Amino acid sequence: MKYDFDCVIVGSGISGMTSAIYLKRANAKILILDKDAPGGLLNKVTTVENYPGFKKITGPELAFNIYDQVKNLDIEIRYGNVLNIKDHIITTDIEKISASKIIIATGRNSRKLDLNNNLSNVSYCALCDGNLYKNKIVAVIGGANSALEEALYLSDLCQEVLIMNRSSSLGGDAILINAVNNTPNIKVLLDCVVKTLNSNNNVLTSIETNNSNYQVDAMFISIGYEPSSNFLEELKKDNGYIIVDNNMQTNIDYIYACGDIIKKNIYQLTTAVGEATTAAINVKKTL
Amino acid sequence: MKYDFDCVIVGSGISGMTSAIYLKRANAKILILDKDAPGGLLNKVTTVENYPGFKKITGPELAFNIYDQVKNLDIEIRYGNVLNIKDHIITTDIEKISASKIIIATGRNSRKLDLNNNLSNVSYCALCDGNLYKNKIVAVIGGANSALEEALYLSDLCQEVLIMNRSSSLGGDAILINAVNNTPNIKVLLDCVVKTLNSNNNVLTSIETNNSNYQVDAMFISIGYEPSSNFLEELKKDNGYIIVDNNMQTNIDYIYACGDIIKKNIYQLTTAVGEATTAAINVKKTL
Repeated sequence: MKYDFDCVIVGSGISGMTSAIYLKRANAKILILDKDAPGGLLNKVTTVENYPGFKKITGPELAFNIYDQVKNLDIEIRYGNVLNIKDHIITTDIEKISASKIIIATGRNSRKLDLNNNLSNVSYCALCDGNLYKNKIVAVIGGANSALEEALYLSDLCQEVLIMNRSSSLGGDAILINAVNNTPNIKVLLDCVVKTLNSNNNVLTSIETNNSNYQVDAMFISIGYEPSSNFLEELKKDNGYIIVDNNMQTNIDYIYACGDIIKKNIYQLTTAVGEATTAAINVKKTL
Repeated sequence: MKYDFDCVIVGSGISGMTSAIYLKRANAKILILDKDAPGGLLNKVTTVENYPGFKKITGPELAFNIYDQVKNLDIEIRYGNVLNIKDHIITTDIEKISASKIIIATGRNSRKLDLNNNLSNVSYCALCDGNLYKNKIVAVIGGANSALEEALYLSDLCQEVLIMNRSSSLGGDAILINAVNNTPNIKVLLDCVVKTLNSNNNVLTSIETNNSNYQVDAMFISIGYEPSSNFLEELKKDNGYIIVDNNMQTNIDYIYACGDIIKKNIYQLTTAVGEATTAAINVKKTL
């Protein structure tokens, strides 16, 4: 049977683009498919300091660098929301595409706070929206690495940053916890659970927690991630994370997965590029 | 028991430095130990085009970027040749150092050609020595990715590059094979086995193969790698490559390994940084 492509890669984050670079260099006929701009979650990362090669780089800059590699190799990217995959056919909201092999690299999205947060000054991305709140008071909800990085980024812009964390200690890297503790305009609130968002004309005015009420000019939410794998019911998953073997193969023999969408212990850029390489090389072997 | 360090990382190539970046950011007391300058084998790589983030970078430049991250974190590096490791004590030719955990990231060295090749114009690194042979005729021995990259690099400098490959086809990525085939001053010799090196005053003058005799001004050898793991007899290995589990732990519970020194299917920069992160995070959990 003749397919439109040797391999279609669903997702254009760092892992999808890395798989594409390896496959295209190996002369495979490939396509990247995504419903958003290239870069994925990396576009919402304020600062990357632990990816080897860059002392300090923003997420969007790193994403652009990799996108530049992809363009330089003339890799085709099409836009489309994948509705389902069946018998080598990918159905998007726009078209049907067939592929001998498929790599799922759809990653994760920010977890939403389970409150009415369709408010104009509630954000999931300090890098995107922080600039709007210069010299203002803002809250960051969360206590792991991404929340600490958001707070540190905002501390350079804002008058005061309140970190509101449910648990009794911060959960990130020591280097980030130290930096937060040494930043005078960051205040860490522990055992602090957000209960109600008070608003006026669709604008958040204050946050009620289990302890107190805080007037803020904006709120940034950073409470973890949810995998984006709803379009493929037949894949074996654990809480939405796709289960793969050491070759990044799923329970469906022509479908591979890599990056933040897979079930694993460590979700880092470095592990994502490793898995993406492994998926690509194993796909290439079977073409 | 009190150790000198939480973790000593043996080897300062890309995987050793990546483990160090992760551990130091997690506040561990660490040391990198190496008998050579930071960068490892990467210092001998002419061109990197498949590491996400850089469209095209030389190996030494990428190594320097990562070294810059290491220095920026005030990570201590000491020089020393590791003679053996026993009961948490690392013995080098200079000192004895104790560590709670040890990560082996000693990588691989270029495999030597089994002929008298202690000749002044026989090299294992086009990037290091290519410049000496501008407008000359050179041979590259090998046929996989690294040999093709060496040949392409030399083709910009030299009058003619002869690739001498034992087997009947080239074994590298399609993109590199195409580039080689489209470079007029590269000549590919297949089924070509080097038999004798003729020399005069310690200078190679011609290469005798199974088919013919080739006068060359220099020879670059790129026939694969050998792991550098002789100093640790008790580790479980396969042909010198250390066997690790999915957490990068060896058969000795306080010793981890990552990068090119481990037994695995794919030896890439991307897989090395992934494994290095995995080793570091698992070490950190046990400190």
